[in-house]
Amino acid sequence: MSAPKKVVLAYSGGLDTSIILKWLQTEYGCEVVTFTADLGQGEELEPARQKAELLGIKPENIYIEDVREEFVRDFVFPMFRANAQYEGLYLLGTSIARPLISKRLIEIAEETGADAVAHGATGKGNDQVRFELAAYALNPDIKVIAPWREWDLTSRTRLIDFAEQNQIPIAKDKRGEAPFSVDANLLHTSSEGKVLEDPAVQAPDYVFQRTVHPEDAPDTPEYIEIGYEKGDPVSINGEAMSPATILTALNEYGRKHGIGRLDLVEGRFVGMKSRGIYETPGGTIMLEAHRGIESITMDRGAMHLKDELMPKYAEAIYNGFWYSPEREMLQAAIDLSQEHVTGTVRVKLYKGMVSTVGRWSDHSLYSEEHVTFEEDAGAYDQKDAAGFIQLQALRLKLIAMRNKRVK
Amino acid sequence: MSAPKKVVLAYSGGLDTSIILKWLQTEYGCEVVTFTADLGQGEELEPARQKAELLGIKPENIYIEDVREEFVRDFVFPMFRANAQYEGLYLLGTSIARPLISKRLIEIAEETGADAVAHGATGKGNDQVRFELAAYALNPDIKVIAPWREWDLTSRTRLIDFAEQNQIPIAKDKRGEAPFSVDANLLHTSSEGKVLEDPAVQAPDYVFQRTVHPEDAPDTPEYIEIGYEKGDPVSINGEAMSPATILTALNEYGRKHGIGRLDLVEGRFVGMKSRGIYETPGGTIMLEAHRGIESITMDRGAMHLKDELMPKYAEAIYNGFWYSPEREMLQAAIDLSQEHVTGTVRVKLYKGMVSTVGRWSDHSLYSEEHVTFEEDAGAYDQKDAAGFIQLQALRLKLIAMRNKRVK
Amino acid sequence: MSAPKKVVLAYSGGLDTSIILKWLQTEYGCEVVTFTADLGQGEELEPARQKAELLGIKPENIYIEDVREEFVRDFVFPMFRANAQYEGLYLLGTSIARPLISKRLIEIAEETGADAVAHGATGKGNDQVRFELAAYALNPDIKVIAPWREWDLTSRTRLIDFAEQNQIPIAKDKRGEAPFSVDANLLHTSSEGKVLEDPAVQAPDYVFQRTVHPEDAPDTPEYIEIGYEKGDPVSINGEAMSPATILTALNEYGRKHGIGRLDLVEGRFVGMKSRGIYETPGGTIMLEAHRGIESITMDRGAMHLKDELMPKYAEAIYNGFWYSPEREMLQAAIDLSQEHVTGTVRVKLYKGMVSTVGRWSDHSLYSEEHVTFEEDAGAYDQKDAAGFIQLQALRLKLIAMRNKRVK
Amino acid sequence: MSAPKKVVLAYSGGLDTSIILKWLQTEYGCEVVTFTADLGQGEELEPARQKAELLGIKPENIYIEDVREEFVRDFVFPMFRANAQYEGLYLLGTSIARPLISKRLIEIAEETGADAVAHGATGKGNDQVRFELAAYALNPDIKVIAPWREWDLTSRTRLIDFAEQNQIPIAKDKRGEAPFSVDANLLHTSSEGKVLEDPAVQAPDYVFQRTVHPEDAPDTPEYIEIGYEKGDPVSINGEAMSPATILTALNEYGRKHGIGRLDLVEGRFVGMKSRGIYETPGGTIMLEAHRGIESITMDRGAMHLKDELMPKYAEAIYNGFWYSPEREMLQAAIDLSQEHVTGTVRVKLYKGMVSTVGRWSDHSLYSEEHVTFEEDAGAYDQKDAAGFIQLQALRLKLIAMRNKRVK
Repeated sequence: MSAPKKVVLAYSGGLDTSIILKWLQTEYGCEVVTFTADLGQGEELEPARQKAELLGIKPENIYIEDVREEFVRDFVFPMFRANAQYEGLYLLGTSIARPLISKRLIEIAEETGADAVAHGATGKGNDQVRFELAAYALNPDIKVIAPWREWDLTSRTRLIDFAEQNQIPIAKDKRGEAPFSVDANLLHTSSEGKVLEDPAVQAPDYVFQRTVHPEDAPDTPEYIEIGYEKGDPVSINGEAMSPATILTALNEYGRKHGIGRLDLVEGRFVGMKSRGIYETPGGTIMLEAHRGIESITMDRGAMHLKDELMPKYAEAIYNGFWYSPEREMLQAAIDLSQEHVTGTVRVKLYKGMVSTVGRWSDHSLYSEEHVTFEEDAGAYDQKDAAGFIQLQALRLKLIAMRNKRVK
Repeated sequence: MSAPKKVVLAYSGGLDTSIILKWLQTEYGCEVVTFTADLGQGEELEPARQKAELLGIKPENIYIEDVREEFVRDFVFPMFRANAQYEGLYLLGTSIARPLISKRLIEIAEETGADAVAHGATGKGNDQVRFELAAYALNPDIKVIAPWREWDLTSRTRLIDFAEQNQIPIAKDKRGEAPFSVDANLLHTSSEGKVLEDPAVQAPDYVFQRTVHPEDAPDTPEYIEIGYEKGDPVSINGEAMSPATILTALNEYGRKHGIGRLDLVEGRFVGMKSRGIYETPGGTIMLEAHRGIESITMDRGAMHLKDELMPKYAEAIYNGFWYSPEREMLQAAIDLSQEHVTGTVRVKLYKGMVSTVGRWSDHSLYSEEHVTFEEDAGAYDQKDAAGFIQLQALRLKLIAMRNKRVK
Repeated sequence: MSAPKKVVLAYSGGLDTSIILKWLQTEYGCEVVTFTADLGQGEELEPARQKAELLGIKPENIYIEDVREEFVRDFVFPMFRANAQYEGLYLLGTSIARPLISKRLIEIAEETGADAVAHGATGKGNDQVRFELAAYALNPDIKVIAPWREWDLTSRTRLIDFAEQNQIPIAKDKRGEAPFSVDANLLHTSSEGKVLEDPAVQAPDYVFQRTVHPEDAPDTPEYIEIGYEKGDPVSINGEAMSPATILTALNEYGRKHGIGRLDLVEGRFVGMKSRGIYETPGGTIMLEAHRGIESITMDRGAMHLKDELMPKYAEAIYNGFWYSPEREMLQAAIDLSQEHVTGTVRVKLYKGMVSTVGRWSDHSLYSEEHVTFEEDAGAYDQKDAAGFIQLQALRLKLIAMRNKRVK
Repeated sequence: MSAPKKVVLAYSGGLDTSIILKWLQTEYGCEVVTFTADLGQGEELEPARQKAELLGIKPENIYIEDVREEFVRDFVFPMFRANAQYEGLYLLGTSIARPLISKRLIEIAEETGADAVAHGATGKGNDQVRFELAAYALNPDIKVIAPWREWDLTSRTRLIDFAEQNQIPIAKDKRGEAPFSVDANLLHTSSEGKVLEDPAVQAPDYVFQRTVHPEDAPDTPEYIEIGYEKGDPVSINGEAMSPATILTALNEYGRKHGIGRLDLVEGRFVGMKSRGIYETPGGTIMLEAHRGIESITMDRGAMHLKDELMPKYAEAIYNGFWYSPEREMLQAAIDLSQEHVTGTVRVKLYKGMVSTVGRWSDHSLYSEEHVTFEEDAGAYDQKDAAGFIQLQALRLKLIAMRNKRVK
């Protein structure tokens, strides 16, 4: 790879990406463009602008954007249509944000004539893969710089030294090692590393940042009604909301009731297992509610196919293949299944739990007439079941007869 | 079908199967053998014996058996190795009991020279299919009698009339219609019908029989440690237990903490949707704990394959294909994956929730050395990730180059 | 089911459906509308009109249509995009024609105010299921009459008697039993029953009607070039053709070279196994050529997903679920994968074989630069493979270390 | 990686692996152990011994073994039980040999106290991955040396120079570049590279080495009967044979009739597409015959599951994951399905084609009684089909009613 001339850096404004910024300037002598996105991580963006300026970035090279609506509408919602859970449990809160960041990095590279992008993910994790696969899928000629895989700043001490030598301001609490590392966006907060590295040991209370402890949640349940249209939530208690607004509101409900905590050991794409603490308050409510509305509006044939495809779909996103033909094929199938996933779900929120307690829809496939224990009004002839069973049984009978014969 | 001469009836001792018993005698003039099983439904069996005798069944034709250990060891545990959930949520508590009952019916038919078996499932549900497919798979020549599909006792009034005409004792509370119908065994209790038929309306509190309301559960969490061997739970807090004993104990933990309630609308195999209220206290704990121990002992390749196979496996059980080559093939794959699923999981029980908070095992694949944020001791070379990503990206780059070219 | 008043009958003009026509009139006293379709079965349609008139059908109730283009464009081509083969081999020639016939039956029922449709498929085969599932999916209120499951004309003698009593003309060769039964359309001819019922015995030469014997095919290979656009064949040797025209032309190539014969025992949806002799000359060429063009234009990720979905897709069509949400979901995924399946394939036709010998496309993903044995020009760094392998191996190493440890 | 002390080299005796042998000695100064296997590639092994001795290998460090029986019994046959075809067509002849070679390399390393193994695969292909994943899975501590990824002998000229400088004998025809490269074993011969690199251009006749041209094959078909036991071929025309013997015999039949040629563009695991010419004469006959015997002895449920799993299984083998938990899980399922795959298949061999023309078995599930067009003898009640269809249709009707309602 020839040396990059101009690099678009995914820049948080924090110490680590500030060090990367400076390192790019000194190591490659290249011009740096910063991209700072509001994905709902709950940090102000203006300090990132000031810090970038302080580090010598020209104003026209500083991109700061609120992408929350795009994030929820084009990434989070499509994923939740699939009820995606990686390894049965993880709601993919980190995974789903990476392709959007890469997409903007590539777009900004095109706008600014940059020939490279850079990110602050380490060489041990999944995020490097997600950033880079998305980048290459969107621009096969782009250069990607991953300083953590390249440089020799491999200890906290060296990083701090580098920062000091380069006049990078260091917040007091960043001098020492953090007891764990955090990633956050509108969908979730993940925490991992250090104090969390032994999967036998319960995560300390102070790790949780996004939800109250279930024990501290209200002693009275709260009920909300979530409206759905074509598989996406569109209202709470009858009030219509935009994608980011509704997720924000659901996050607040979830936070208050201690909903969406997950302590997981998962298999990383790069090969080892890792342990993460995830808080996905609104997402956990959405998963439950979405299954609730699907349960009355989606046919069994569609649902079972969807359930079979889901692990593959979740794996594609986890592994960084958002921009791949297989994810897009799966999405096409999933989206088609959502055409009638419209209606309302009533959920109960209480001490860490979200439970569907009612659901209704003009698009419902539920037919009381067919299922009732009451005497039939002709909708269903129980005698049909005899023929149904006989033909279902025929192959099993033929096997049994064969097995008896050859024994 | 020629008329049956001797029928083995799945007999609960309740009013409905007593009516069936008498109807078989009068309609077909055939000898009846009764089979009453203790599957952990929580009812005494001796009254069933007395009632059968009262209805004229010869003592040698009355089979009463405690099959709880066999049920848990050979049916429930193999199913939980798969983390089976039908339509994403249902733990298959009713489905998994049916093949065992059919197996004993067929065995007793062979012992007693009976040419038919009979069951009390209606013509609208899944259970008729499960009973009959299992029966035919085990004995292709057996006759199966399903009175609910045949007779004209199609209203409560007619049933009661028939009972009175035939001197069948009727408990007071059975004269009127029950507000919902119940099925129970050691794994779960399901309730459906009548007051539950409108899926928009929250299930009334009195429907729940197996678990306390989460609101009434203890205000302090309780922690237990579940030991696993080759995918099956074998101990609680260090105390070894048999399969049925451990499930009974977990049920008690679950009951106390209000764990395992599910309000579900599901797609029946016979075609319509139905709404059920399920309580699976111990099973819900087992599902969480099993995922917990798998998370450190099972490789990603095995786990993802298992996750992809699960919906098909759950569907096979739900639809009544326990005794089918496809279920057995899936079981062979799943069982092989459990060879090292041995270790201990610590779970927190609190107000309806069960959460894994720690897990450890001699068979663990988790390697702190590989995952640590600390400086590498050589276990993992971050530079390998660059090559890994380049080759993963290659096909995406080739697609991007092609798409650019043909646009 | 209340008695039908007006029935649309799938009418071939042959003896069997003529008997059905008369039987409907006499049994139900209902008005009959006939629908005769040219699906490319190779029979003239005008005799069907005359016969219908002779049997008393009013001219406005006689529908005769050439649906070949629709058949190939909307049914055959979408299916071939999937490379669908049931049980690994069968190209689904009969299965794919049924939904189209049902679709027209239902449309004509709506046009003519008929309340029922009827077909001539027996109660043992798959076709009854296919006709009826499609009909019910398109009009849930329609009545379907399947005379072969209802009447008592269950022997050849009775059928002939009925025909004679009702002045139905009987062709000489129809008096006796045919040595096997045949279904044909533009895609294939299938033969089954009678002389073919013993799967151990080779099918006699006279069964084959659509292809020459490979031994009688030309001694010199012939090469043709098939042009593809978005997954569908559009030209032969550079000459553009409509869907039905190109399949007709490929059939002629296949016929001449003895291509597309298949002797298969398959598992029917209704439970038993049956043996069929299929001739699918053009379809067999299309399958090979489609795989050929996909091989250079479709990414591995898309192709492998498609290959995994295929058996499920083929099963859906075989079982009669063309008009089902799951088939439509799979189709959406498959169709998306075909966006760039555009280019040309050169195939060799010789004595029963069709083999791809060359393929090229502007949409090709094949990159000589990347694959060449020649010294690298920088497109691919072989050292990347080391990192790729290390990370792929990591989980296998961790397993091996664990297994060694616990042994 | 610390420098290896003793290396087991997969040694063919040819020029390339002789250069590697010498390079290992000079580059690493390490002791070399050679392993030369007879996998049925059709070359004598004794010259490899002499050459190894000439290059200074101690006699006790020269391993020469005939592993043909193990290869067919433990690798080829298990794979053919799955009907494995990568990307729909490739019979995996190269892929399946690699794990066996790695297994022996690792075993010999343990016997001889070697700390490393080496192979002659390049950095662009799949074989490096297959060799190395198998090696690491069997010994996580082993070092693997892949000289083609390390050295600077990156042109034919440099290789020849190195050989001359090191007194490595060079056969005359090895001085220049071969027009394509070849891999062979008892299952297949593959050819790729150079003259084959343009996938638009038909492979020249001289590329084919293992089969006669179909045009030159006998003008008269030949019929053989292959006996199967539990999914594996065990006899030809009634003569029992060992695994390697029967594959050798089938290869001869295939060679003579020009069977098993394939011209394929495939997606490599390392990311690019490549074109290969494969000749798999006996394997192609086995695939057809195995499907033939399965068709009468294997239930539809098992077969469809197997067909769905196959692409994943083939991909695992192609990608080098023979020794992985997922391949072993799939194998367990597949092997279970073969318990009754016992019987005889009659195939016709003619001019490049192999076609099943008859099959019979004591384990057959085919029931003439059930399938016959003749009047029923009670085995099957056609009226059952009506109920079967009604219940299959119910969900489709409910969808149709819903769709009509909400439109």
